[in-house]
This record gives sequence, C-alpha cells and structure tokens, in this order.
Amino acid sequence: MQREPSSTLVRLGADFYRRGWVLGTSGNFSAVLNRDPLRLAITASSVDKGRLTANEILQVDDKGRLLEGAGGKPSAETLLHVAVVQTAGAAAVLHTHSVWSTVLSDVHSAEAGFFIEGYEMLKGLAGVTTHEHREWLPILENSQDMEALSSRAVLLMRANPNLHGFLIRRHGLYTWGESLEAAARHVEIFEFLMEAVARRRMF
Amino acid sequence: MQREPSSTLVRLGADFYRRGWVLGTSGNFSAVLNRDPLRLAITASSVDKGRLTANEILQVDDKGRLLEGAGGKPSAETLLHVAVVQTAGAAAVLHTHSVWSTVLSDVHSAEAGFFIEGYEMLKGLAGVTTHEHREWLPILENSQDMEALSSRAVLLMRANPNLHGFLIRRHGLYTWGESLEAAARHVEIFEFLMEAVARRRMF
Amino acid sequence: MQREPSSTLVRLGADFYRRGWVLGTSGNFSAVLNRDPLRLAITASSVDKGRLTANEILQVDDKGRLLEGAGGKPSAETLLHVAVVQTAGAAAVLHTHSVWSTVLSDVHSAEAGFFIEGYEMLKGLAGVTTHEHREWLPILENSQDMEALSSRAVLLMRANPNLHGFLIRRHGLYTWGESLEAAARHVEIFEFLMEAVARRRMF
Amino acid sequence: MQREPSSTLVRLGADFYRRGWVLGTSGNFSAVLNRDPLRLAITASSVDKGRLTANEILQVDDKGRLLEGAGGKPSAETLLHVAVVQTAGAAAVLHTHSVWSTVLSDVHSAEAGFFIEGYEMLKGLAGVTTHEHREWLPILENSQDMEALSSRAVLLMRANPNLHGFLIRRHGLYTWGESLEAAARHVEIFEFLMEAVARRRMF
Repeated sequence: MQREPSSTLVRLGADFYRRGWVLGTSGNFSAVLNRDPLRLAITASSVDKGRLTANEILQVDDKGRLLEGAGGKPSAETLLHVAVVQTAGAAAVLHTHSVWSTVLSDVHSAEAGFFIEGYEMLKGLAGVTTHEHREWLPILENSQDMEALSSRAVLLMRANPNLHGFLIRRHGLYTWGESLEAAARHVEIFEFLMEAVARRRMF
Repeated sequence: MQREPSSTLVRLGADFYRRGWVLGTSGNFSAVLNRDPLRLAITASSVDKGRLTANEILQVDDKGRLLEGAGGKPSAETLLHVAVVQTAGAAAVLHTHSVWSTVLSDVHSAEAGFFIEGYEMLKGLAGVTTHEHREWLPILENSQDMEALSSRAVLLMRANPNLHGFLIRRHGLYTWGESLEAAARHVEIFEFLMEAVARRRMF
Repeated sequence: MQREPSSTLVRLGADFYRRGWVLGTSGNFSAVLNRDPLRLAITASSVDKGRLTANEILQVDDKGRLLEGAGGKPSAETLLHVAVVQTAGAAAVLHTHSVWSTVLSDVHSAEAGFFIEGYEMLKGLAGVTTHEHREWLPILENSQDMEALSSRAVLLMRANPNLHGFLIRRHGLYTWGESLEAAARHVEIFEFLMEAVARRRMF
Repeated sequence: MQREPSSTLVRLGADFYRRGWVLGTSGNFSAVLNRDPLRLAITASSVDKGRLTANEILQVDDKGRLLEGAGGKPSAETLLHVAVVQTAGAAAVLHTHSVWSTVLSDVHSAEAGFFIEGYEMLKGLAGVTTHEHREWLPILENSQDMEALSSRAVLLMRANPNLHGFLIRRHGLYTWGESLEAAARHVEIFEFLMEAVARRRMF
C-alpha cells in the first residue's frame, strides 16, 4: 500500500511521455491506497501525461466512483485498473501506448497473443529467474465498452495466473506490480522486449 | 481566438524541432488572432523553429499581407494557412515535416491518400470517440505555386469536411484545431499513427 | 589502475540508461582498483543504472567476494568481469544490453559470431588503425551458471586474443579497455557498428 | 570569414554528438579564419566531440600545418577540409558519421552515389528553390591515404560543381557552406533526407 503515490505518478508521466509511451492524452496510471475497502489513486481522464500534476490524481473506490480530487473525471479505463488490482493482487497498474505495443498487438491478434522467450531481459519481470522463461503476452480485442473489456481481462488473468501484463489490440500495454516501482520496471522491460522481438522479425 | 499565441508557438517550435518534425527551416505555424477581419499570427519565412523567437511571429491579413512584425517575411505558405483557417474554421494550423510523413506521403501518392483505422490513438483527434473510426489522410501533390496548392487544399477540405489533416507529397503534414493546444495534439497523434502504420507494414 | 572510478561509473550509468543500453536493472560495470591482489570496483546486483549512486559501487576480490560497500550484493556476473580483467588484461569492463546487441546476438547465434569489417568507425577500437580491419564479434550461448559462462568466456578470449568484446546470446555486450574511458568508447563504437550492420541487412 | 568560430564549433559538437552523428571520436569540423593566406580553425584529432572544448580547436595553414593551439594534433582529415574549402569555396566544412550515411554510402557504392529528388526538404540546401531539384550525392571509396582521398575529392567537386556534399563509403558525410550555420543546416538536411530515402526503400 502506498500512501503518497502522487509524486511518483507525476514523475512517471513526464518520463513515459518523453519516451513516446503516453502521447496525446493516452495512457493511465493507478496505485492502491487502501486494499479493503479498495481506494485507488488514478490519473484523471484525458490529461496530458507529460504535464501531469498532483491535482490530476484522483481517488476512486472499487466501482470507479470519484471519492476525492477536483482535477477531472476518473479515467474511462478505471474499471480495468480495478479489475487488474483485484484479480492480480497488484499494488499499481500502468497502461502505456507505445508504437511497438500497438504494432505487435495487431500483428499477433489472430493468435490472441505471443510468447517472449529466451531473453535475459525477462529476468526483469517479478519472479522470473532465468532467461529460459517463456512469457505469454496475451492480446485482447479493443472495445469502448469498459465493463465488457474488464470482464474479459478478469477471465484472461484467471486463466493465466502467471501473466505480468497483457496487450489490447492496436491500443497498448497493461502491466502491474507489487509497487509502482515494480510496475514501472515492467513497462520498461516489456517495451524493450517488444522492440527486440519486432526488430528480430525483420531478419 | 487567441490573443497571445507567441509564447506557445515558440515553445512548440523548440519541442517539435527536438523531435525532428521541423528540421532545417521546415515547418510553419499559425494561430487566429481575429476572425473578421482575419488576423493571423504566423511564423516568419525560413526561420529555425528550434530557436524561434517571439519577434519571428508576424501578423498577416487574409491575403497574407504583413501587418505587424519586423522579424522577417511571412512564411511562403501563408496562403495555405489562410485557406485552412477559412475552410476548416480552424483557430490554429500547424505544418510539420517528419520523416514518417515524408515517407508515407510518397508511398501512397498513387491513391492520393490512405486510411488509418482501428487504432485507439485515433480518439486523440477532435470528435472521434471510438477506435472503430476510419480516418482518411489525403495527399496533395507538392507544388511551389502556393495559390494553386491552396486552391487544391480548399477543394479537398470541402469534399472531405471531416478531415483532421492532409499530407503534401514528400513534404509533410498540415493539421489544425480549435486551439493551438488541439492542433499540437493532432500533430502528435498523426505522427504516432503514421509511425505505427509504417512499421506495421514491415511485417 | 583507477583509484576513484565511482563518479565515472555513476555518470556512465545515467548516460547509458538514457540511451536505452542498461534498462530495467540490466548491465553491470567494473574497474580495476588494484591488480595484485585483484581489487575490483563493481556495481551492486539488481540496481537501476539510471539512478546509480556511489554507494552502490562495491569492492570485490578475485573470487567475487565482497570486501567493501554496503549498497548491496556484488553483481551476479562478477565472475565474468574477473575473467575478462584477468584474461584480457583490462582495467575496466562494461556490460550493456541494447536492443541491437540482443537482436544480432540471436540472428548470428548459429555461426557463434559475426565479422564487422570495412567500417571507418572500427578505428575507435583500441589498436585498430584502418577501416580495412576485420573484427570478429563472437557470441556465447547464455547461461545462468556464471562459473560455466566465465570458463567459456576465458576459452574464447584465449583463442581470440585480439577481441575487443563479445556478445552473450539474447543478452548483450561485454567490452573492456585499458581505462574506463576506453571501455566506454568501445561500448559506443560497438553500438554504432551493430546498428549499422543490422540496418544494412534490411536492404 | 569568421573570426570566432570556436564557441559555435563547441556547440555543434555537443549537439551532433547527442544526435548520434559524431560518436566515438568520429567527425571533424572546420571554419575559414582567413582566405589568403588560408587560415583554418579545425578540431584536433581524436577528441570526443560531445565534450569538445575551445582549447581543442586548432589553427592550421593550407598544408594542414599547426599554427596555433595546444589542444592536440590537427585532425588526420585536415587535408580533406582544405581541399573542400579551396575547391568549393566554402567558409566551413562539417564531417559527420551517422548510421544512415554509413549504411547508404555502402548500399550505393557500386553506382558511386545516388540521386535525392522530389523532396521539399531539398530546399534547405543553398540555392535550391524547388522540390523538383535533383541532388547527386556522390560516394568516394574510403582510404587512410588522406592525400589520395583529397585528390579524389577535388576531382569529384570539379566534375560536379553543384554538389552540396559527398559521402565516403562506410565512413560518413562531408558537407560545407558559406558559413558555419549554413554548413550545419546542410548536415541536418542531408541527415533527414538520408533517413527518408533509406526508410522509403523498405516499402
């Protein structure tokens, strides 16, 4: 549980924006403030992550209802964050939207995901201790119906309890962790691996 | 209507230059100061956008004639900005010149444009509320005759009232918005989408 | 022999992280403090190189045992650093983990390496005075058994005394030099050459 | 004629290094201080352009002999700079070494060059007023014999008086201008055009 995640979220927003992972007003971030009842700090809807302010971090409950904060409406994807927190037991959820995740989520949509295996960098994922690990990165079809999308994400995570993240087709990456730092490391690891996997295919 | 767009234009120049979208002295930016009679703030011709100064933002009328400012001549493409402002009703027009827009404007020149569809990032374009949107990004042949090019741009915008931008072949992107911030977001959205579309083709 | 390599290592960490060569907690760096008995300054295990602190630089002996420093355990790959220092006579060893080294180490794994030849940039490698040089960049299969991997690295360096570096498959680059500055230049040279070699193949 | 080019050369070094155009100790820059007798300010040999200091800018004559400066030996490629200054009448010469110039100088070596045509960005080259321009970018075979290479460069420039630059195979770009600012713009224009040309070929 993190009491004061705002400054970390603001820093991640600026950093991820600079790297091209949350352009436009894409992406959204959350961190668990309290587990029971669930209290989640989450970025407001449609804000520029490169200029995120503490004021734009809101507090919501497990239905995605706004409890605290005057910096906007909760992100449209709040229900997806709640679903990940509850199903995966995560303390933080980061959704990014890079070019490589957009491209690979489309290339492999027919197989509903792809394996990443044999890479040393996989050891940056929590609990992975060898490059011989085989990571399944599933892909959900995109939808504007957040309840439907959340339900599908829950089924996916239940069916694959060892996931560290999933893609939404032509939309981007959801990953999480036991802390904001761990979730941010997972973003970095997945972005590296997706670029490596994509460039490897060109040979 | 924006009264003081200069500092925003200077900031956009430095930011877009850093990202490689207005190298050399390419690109030009404008913002409506008054609608009737039309008064447009526009970058001077042949200035380095990475080092743009407020002095290099000029004021012109609807014929592109210089009304105020001693920092140079109005951009050669002033008539094109006026055409976009008048036909699309935009409050700001940004012309950038990235590698991806240059490449895609050539790859698809025979079809005079291409569709971008199915991408979540499309929701960053004004009025688009779902990734199921299908955006037509038309391509005009390049010309050094600005009157001819402006006329063709007007015809194009009238025939396609839902456009958010167009390309000029081997030249770059014109996009616009109801504010400088909206137009700058459109640049970012189109640049992301063009890179994603181009990289997707490599598979 | 370098007496105070910590500030240089900290600077290299931030610089290499920014360039995407030591993401996650990947990569590790060492510098010889004393040759006989061997005393090596080395980065602690699992630290973020982008935020490396002097406290995370440890001192170890030729068995990789911690002698000084409270900032963590010595890197898991300490034995590999010791092997390079002793076999190649290096004063500094840098291990990085870029996308291009990851990709090329996989593309050429069946041949256990590849030649880089004819490039002017090769002159940035110590002792190379003409672009007509032919540099063999060998590839070791990856392993989590550091003793085995070190033994294989020693055999490789003995069989190829003119090496300036080697790759570990899907893992990254080891390079070294007679000073930290020389080793850092080698990283930069190899990264440039690997990107050039990889992009050249696309034509 | 520029009296005090040092601060501009230092700034260009840091900027070009950051963009990956003068990595390792590659690249070298010069500016004419006096035309008759020729006095040239030129970067010292084997210095890191990312950390260039005014002390590393030397003064040489038309034989490449050191006249002033204690920051090192004149660049090994001084004779090539002298040749460009004298044959093309340039006031400044910039040699860079990017990945794209390295790759394209190899791809097109059999034809000894390639045309760049139809790009709006060509208008950034001095004297070019329309995208309908056809620019020949010749390629010289690389050599460590600077007298031989200079002679070939002179012949090339005399045979093609409208050149704005040339490539050396697997080595990089030479370009020049009537001022350091013009030469720096030419670097930027050629780098953009080479990346566009190279990426265009991938479709």
